[in-house]
Amino acid sequence: MKIPVVKEILNANDQVADEIRAEFKEHSVFVLNMMASPGAGKTTFILATLDRLPQGTRPGVIEGDLASSIDADTISARGVPVVQINTGGGCHLDAPMIKSALPHLPVPELDLLFIENVGNLVCPANFDVAADLAVVVASVPEGHDKPYKYPGMFTVADVVILNKADMIEVFEFDVDYFRRGVEMVNPDTPLFVVSAKTGAGISEWIEWLSSQQG
Amino acid sequence: MKIPVVKEILNANDQVADEIRAEFKEHSVFVLNMMASPGAGKTTFILATLDRLPQGTRPGVIEGDLASSIDADTISARGVPVVQINTGGGCHLDAPMIKSALPHLPVPELDLLFIENVGNLVCPANFDVAADLAVVVASVPEGHDKPYKYPGMFTVADVVILNKADMIEVFEFDVDYFRRGVEMVNPDTPLFVVSAKTGAGISEWIEWLSSQQG
Repeated sequence: MKIPVVKEILNANDQVADEIRAEFKEHSVFVLNMMASPGAGKTTFILATLDRLPQGTRPGVIEGDLASSIDADTISARGVPVVQINTGGGCHLDAPMIKSALPHLPVPELDLLFIENVGNLVCPANFDVAADLAVVVASVPEGHDKPYKYPGMFTVADVVILNKADMIEVFEFDVDYFRRGVEMVNPDTPLFVVSAKTGAGISEWIEWLSSQQG
Repeated sequence: MKIPVVKEILNANDQVADEIRAEFKEHSVFVLNMMASPGAGKTTFILATLDRLPQGTRPGVIEGDLASSIDADTISARGVPVVQINTGGGCHLDAPMIKSALPHLPVPELDLLFIENVGNLVCPANFDVAADLAVVVASVPEGHDKPYKYPGMFTVADVVILNKADMIEVFEFDVDYFRRGVEMVNPDTPLFVVSAKTGAGISEWIEWLSSQQG
């Protein structure tokens, strides 16, 4: 008698993620999943990055929001290809949503794709959207205790951005306490302290990002 | 032949919510469900409210977080009865969690119970925790577009607090644009512009709150 071996079957999201990962790989598109609380400054950070990318880089953006096209309009005004996904109340993006957005982007012509997830420091951490890097953007006004309170998100981060650094003194933000919180759940994750508004720290981040693209 | 009438059956969460609502009513406890993004200042706002409650008010607090007891420790230091619920990754509080917390609070001796939900501007909107008022706390550094991007949360609000008002100029926050966004989804909701840090606007909020308690 043969003992049946039950193989792990991928769930529907992971199956679709694998499909689109293959498409990204075929066209050498490097993909970032940008995750953060509402109002941490994801869009402003993406804009600051777009403005300083190495000459010749061809970026694209997928914007995820429950409603509105406010962020996509902002990106589009820069002349960058962008698609808005409205989740209609859903708390995160998933792979099927990304798949449905791709026909609206010139994928073969892109080098770098930013997926701006729904503003939520909890749910997006659990869904594969076929990104090469999970980028968690925290911001100074949220307070330095976030890694301790939202460990799941900081655990999945491949890189942590601390944005609105120009407000560190105003908010009496303890960068070392924040850094220790990140290291506690995710010891080797790089942390970039930046201000998307002033541009401080952005070139260091871009240098690191370029080193990751293979 | 009698045609069977299928009555709407309450889901498990709503059943438990009704149970604990009855318990709150029996003991005349007025309950606030405090919802906000991570770092909007819910705890600081609760503390500012506790400090200015009418003489003789007996408050209690339930703190909801994915992990840690940072907020409960802060509340406890004020000598206010508090219970910390750790959701272990869950993105919202639900009625069974509140039910499990109640034996740890002196419910019959309370007048006012603050339920500080998980920091999340999406999921908590959909779960009844037997509160009398849904209080949505937005904060200036998050930006004035939040009601447009997260309409679900602002739709369920019985009252909206705009916190960190001392930062309105620094962040070039457009209060009218924010107010119009709230009114668009929820026309008659009162809005209080406050700074939990400086205390500005807190007494107006408390006056209104007192008028709501039966």
